[in-house]
Amino acid sequence: MKTHILSIDCPDQKGIVHHITGVLFRHGLNVVSNGEHVDHEAGRFFMRTEFEGEQAQLPSLGELKSVLPAEHNLRLVEKRKKNIVIMVSKEPHCLGDLLIRHAFDALQANILAVVGNHDRLQPLVEKFGIPYHFITHEGKERAQHEAEIMQVLDGYAPEYVVLAKYMRVLSEAVVARYKHRMVNIHHSFLPAFIGANPYRQAYERGVKIIGATAHLVTTDLDEGPIIAQSVIPVDHTHSARDMSQAGADVEKNVLSKALKLVLDDRVHVHGNRTVIFD
Amino acid sequence: MKTHILSIDCPDQKGIVHHITGVLFRHGLNVVSNGEHVDHEAGRFFMRTEFEGEQAQLPSLGELKSVLPAEHNLRLVEKRKKNIVIMVSKEPHCLGDLLIRHAFDALQANILAVVGNHDRLQPLVEKFGIPYHFITHEGKERAQHEAEIMQVLDGYAPEYVVLAKYMRVLSEAVVARYKHRMVNIHHSFLPAFIGANPYRQAYERGVKIIGATAHLVTTDLDEGPIIAQSVIPVDHTHSARDMSQAGADVEKNVLSKALKLVLDDRVHVHGNRTVIFD
Amino acid sequence: MKTHILSIDCPDQKGIVHHITGVLFRHGLNVVSNGEHVDHEAGRFFMRTEFEGEQAQLPSLGELKSVLPAEHNLRLVEKRKKNIVIMVSKEPHCLGDLLIRHAFDALQANILAVVGNHDRLQPLVEKFGIPYHFITHEGKERAQHEAEIMQVLDGYAPEYVVLAKYMRVLSEAVVARYKHRMVNIHHSFLPAFIGANPYRQAYERGVKIIGATAHLVTTDLDEGPIIAQSVIPVDHTHSARDMSQAGADVEKNVLSKALKLVLDDRVHVHGNRTVIFD
Amino acid sequence: MKTHILSIDCPDQKGIVHHITGVLFRHGLNVVSNGEHVDHEAGRFFMRTEFEGEQAQLPSLGELKSVLPAEHNLRLVEKRKKNIVIMVSKEPHCLGDLLIRHAFDALQANILAVVGNHDRLQPLVEKFGIPYHFITHEGKERAQHEAEIMQVLDGYAPEYVVLAKYMRVLSEAVVARYKHRMVNIHHSFLPAFIGANPYRQAYERGVKIIGATAHLVTTDLDEGPIIAQSVIPVDHTHSARDMSQAGADVEKNVLSKALKLVLDDRVHVHGNRTVIFD
Repeated sequence: MKTHILSIDCPDQKGIVHHITGVLFRHGLNVVSNGEHVDHEAGRFFMRTEFEGEQAQLPSLGELKSVLPAEHNLRLVEKRKKNIVIMVSKEPHCLGDLLIRHAFDALQANILAVVGNHDRLQPLVEKFGIPYHFITHEGKERAQHEAEIMQVLDGYAPEYVVLAKYMRVLSEAVVARYKHRMVNIHHSFLPAFIGANPYRQAYERGVKIIGATAHLVTTDLDEGPIIAQSVIPVDHTHSARDMSQAGADVEKNVLSKALKLVLDDRVHVHGNRTVIFD
Repeated sequence: MKTHILSIDCPDQKGIVHHITGVLFRHGLNVVSNGEHVDHEAGRFFMRTEFEGEQAQLPSLGELKSVLPAEHNLRLVEKRKKNIVIMVSKEPHCLGDLLIRHAFDALQANILAVVGNHDRLQPLVEKFGIPYHFITHEGKERAQHEAEIMQVLDGYAPEYVVLAKYMRVLSEAVVARYKHRMVNIHHSFLPAFIGANPYRQAYERGVKIIGATAHLVTTDLDEGPIIAQSVIPVDHTHSARDMSQAGADVEKNVLSKALKLVLDDRVHVHGNRTVIFD
Repeated sequence: MKTHILSIDCPDQKGIVHHITGVLFRHGLNVVSNGEHVDHEAGRFFMRTEFEGEQAQLPSLGELKSVLPAEHNLRLVEKRKKNIVIMVSKEPHCLGDLLIRHAFDALQANILAVVGNHDRLQPLVEKFGIPYHFITHEGKERAQHEAEIMQVLDGYAPEYVVLAKYMRVLSEAVVARYKHRMVNIHHSFLPAFIGANPYRQAYERGVKIIGATAHLVTTDLDEGPIIAQSVIPVDHTHSARDMSQAGADVEKNVLSKALKLVLDDRVHVHGNRTVIFD
Repeated sequence: MKTHILSIDCPDQKGIVHHITGVLFRHGLNVVSNGEHVDHEAGRFFMRTEFEGEQAQLPSLGELKSVLPAEHNLRLVEKRKKNIVIMVSKEPHCLGDLLIRHAFDALQANILAVVGNHDRLQPLVEKFGIPYHFITHEGKERAQHEAEIMQVLDGYAPEYVVLAKYMRVLSEAVVARYKHRMVNIHHSFLPAFIGANPYRQAYERGVKIIGATAHLVTTDLDEGPIIAQSVIPVDHTHSARDMSQAGADVEKNVLSKALKLVLDDRVHVHGNRTVIFD
C-alpha cells in the first residue's frame, strides 16, 4: 500500500469534487485527507487529495483528466522524500537547521548536495557527509558563474532547490528551469526597505518587528508567490547587528516551515498567489 | 438564492465525499466551500459544505442521510445571523468588544439581550438599546438563581449563549440545555494555576506569558472543547494587576475569534475535541 | 504624595545617572522606577524616572538642568490622566475600543471630544456623553477644512491627538502644532504596498501576514517614529475584505498599546526613532 | 579596556542607584547600559550595570558593598564567553541548534562537553569536535548514575549546565550544586497535563497552542524560576506526533533565547521569580 497525492487546479464548475472523488471511489482507494478551495474572484478551483491504495488500483491520468474541465493542471505524485539541493553563501543559520533535521530524519527530503559561492560553510556540510560544491563568482561573468552552477545542479536532478540565504540574484534562465521548484527565504520589514543593508535601515527607522518571508522564486527578485511569513519583536535596545541576529532566527523558522509545506505537496500556485492546504 | 451550510460527522468510510457531493450536484447546487477532515484515531469523518441555490433545490435531510453510514450527525442550516444572549458579571472588556462589533454590523449575530448577576454593565448595554436583565445571585440559592436566569434565557430562545466573563459556575441542568451552544472565555496560564486569584499566582510564579482559552461549555468547568487560544507576553515589570489587564486584552480577542467561528457553523465537536473548518 | 515622571535625553557622558539620581536623593524623593538607555551610535543618553514625593520636595528644573550637559531635553510631568481629542473618519474599531476603555477607567486619558470628517460615528460617540464635531471636508479647500479642525482642536487644548483611522492627510501646519503629540495607526504589510486599496493589493499578492503600525505623526505621511507594531496571520481563504477585517483587529490592539505607552510618558523620540521604557 | 557586568539585588531604599553609580563614576568607568527594577511587593531592588574600563579602574567589592544595605547580593563578572556543559537524552533539536550556533560563534559560550544517558546523539556531537560522555542509566541505581555524571561534570567545572531535553529527574544534590546555574527546557500546555505522554493528552484535549518554558532548575521538578516562554499554534489536523514536532520547534527557540539571557548575566532570581534585564 502506498500513499499518493493528487493536486488539481482548474476552472471552477459544479460537480468537480463529486467527479474526482468518484474516480477514486470506483478504484477502491482510501482517501486520507482532502482539501479544496475555490478562488471566487479568479473562478478557479483547487484540490489536494491524499489517498492510499495498491499501485494496481491507481487510476490513469487520462481517467482523472476526463472528469475535469479543460485548462486544468493535474499532478499525481507518490508521497515520499523529495530530492533537494541547497544553495548558500556565507550565513549558516538556515543551512544548519536543515542539516540537523536531515541528519535525524525530520526533513521530508534527501539533501543531495550543497552549492555555495563561498567556502565558509563547506566544513559544516562535509561533517554531515554531504557533497559541497564551492563555485566562486569571483572573476567570472554572471553567465559563466550560473552555467557552472547549472551544470552541478542538473547533475543532481533535484526536485527542489532551496536558497538558504544564497545572496546572489539568479537570472531568468535559472529561475525558469526550476519554476515553482525553487524556494527562497529573505528578511522582510514593516515598512519595507529598498537598497543596501536593510537591517541598518530598519535600525535607523526604529522598527519594532523584524520579519521573514519564504517564497517560490520567480523572475521578479524577492517577489514570487509567498509560502510562509513570520515576525519577531525588536526594540530600541537592538543594534543593527542584534536585529540581524533576530532576523536570522525568524528566517530559519520560516524557511523550515515553508519547506515542510512544499515537500509535502501542499503548495499550489496560481498567478502570484499560493493556495496552501496545511 | 440562499447559502446553506451542511455539517456532517460520521464513521469514516470510502466514498462519503463522493456521495454527499453527488446529492448536491444532482440538485444543481453550487458548492462555495468544502472542508473535510478524517480523525484517523477515532475513525471518524467530518465535513462542512457551504453551497448556494434556490430554496426549491434543497435536498431533503432524508436524501442526505441515505448516503451516510449509520451513527452520523447531520445539520443543515441557512447561512444567516444567529440569535445570541450574552451573560456577564462585572468586567466590561469582552462585552464592550461585542457591543461595538454588533453596532457596526461586524458580528454575525443579533444580540437579543444581556443577562448579568451584577448591575455594573447595565448602563453600557442600555446605551446600545439592548435589554439588560440584572439577576442578582445575592441572597438566593443557586437553584433559584439559575431558575430565574433560565426563565429569561428561554424567553429569548437564543441559538447561542456567550459567557463574556460570567464568573459563576453553571449547574449541569443549564449546561445541558445549551449543550455545544454555550461559549465561554477564561484566562489560561503556563503553568496552570488552581484556586483563587490566578493572576496573583501567575505574578508570584513569574510567568512570561498570559493566555486565554475560548471553549464550549460542558459540565466540566473550564474544560469543554477548545475553540481558540492565544497568549500575550508579560514580564517582571507587570504587577498582578497589569497581568490581569494584559489578560483582559487577550481574552477579548480570543472570545471574538471563537465566536466568529461558532456563528459561522465552523466548529464541529467530537468528544472533548473540536474540528474547526476555518 | 504625588508621582512625577522625569524624562531626559542628552549627549551621553559619564556620571549622568549618578548626578540626576543625586538630585532626587538629596530632595528625599522615592524613585519608583528608573529606565535608562544609551544610543551608542548617536552618543545620546535617555532616561525616564518615576518618583514619589510631596510637592514641596520637587527639585527645580534649574537644579536638574545644572547637572546635565548642554543640548539636553528635559521634561518633568505629574503622573495623571492626559487630555486627548480623537479624530476619526468612518471606521469604528479603534474608536470603539478607546470609548469602552475610557468608560470603564481603563484608559489613562480624558477624551475631551471626537472630531470626524464623516458623521457615521457621531451616534456612537454621543452614547458615551462625549462631544462629537462633524467637520465635513466636502466642498472645502484643504486649508479651510484644516482651519476649522484646528479651531475645534485648539479650543480643547488637548495634550495628545489620536488619529483613530482618520483617513485624510494632515498638512505640515497641523502636524507641527502637535509635534510628537499626535499618534496615528495604519495598516502595514510585508511587503509594503503603495497606492490605493492596499488590502486588495495584499490579497492579490497572497500575503500570509497583516500588520499594523502605531507611530507619532510627522510631516512624512505614515513615516513618523514608530511606537508599536504587530501582525496577525492570514491565508488564501481570506478575501480582501476578510484581510481588511483581520487588519482592523490588529490595528485596534496596536493603537491601544501605543497609546498606553504615550499616555504614561514612556516614549522618547530622537530623530526618527523611539526609545520606549516599558 | 574590558567590559564588566555588575549585578545587585538588595532591600529597596532611597539612593541606591545614586550611590552605586557614584562608585563607578569616581573610578572613571564608562557605563554602557544600566537596568534597574524595584519589586514593590517584596520591597527589593535589582540592578544590572554593564561598564567599560581598564582592569586597574575596577572598584573593590568592598567599596561597592559599602554603599549597599545589608542582605544584598552582589556579583561582578567580566563580560566574556561562559563555559558550559550540555546534558541530553535522545532528542536532537535543542542540542543541534546550540551546536550550530557554537560552530559559528553565535553562542556566548564554550561548549566544553556533552553528557548523555543515551548514545544516539554521540555521532552528532563528535562531528563538531566536542567530547561526548555516554553515561547510561541502565542497570544503575539513580545515586550511582548521578555520581558518575557529577564526576564528569565537575571535571569540566562548567559555569552553567544546559539540560537540552535531558529526560531524567535530577536529585537535590545535583540541583543544589548547580543552583541557579542549570537551565532546563520543557513543553508547556494550556491547560497543563500531568503524567505520562503530555503530547498525547494535548492531542486528546484538542489544544490550539503548544508551548515551551525555559527555566532555572530547582528541586521542584519543572518548577524553577521561568526565563522564557513561547507558544506555537496547532489545530485538529495535528496528530499527537505532529504536536510533538511543533513543540520541538518552539522548545529549540525558547531554550536558545533563555540561554542567551543567562549567558549575558541578564537573569536575576528572587524566590521563584526572575527579573530579566533584556
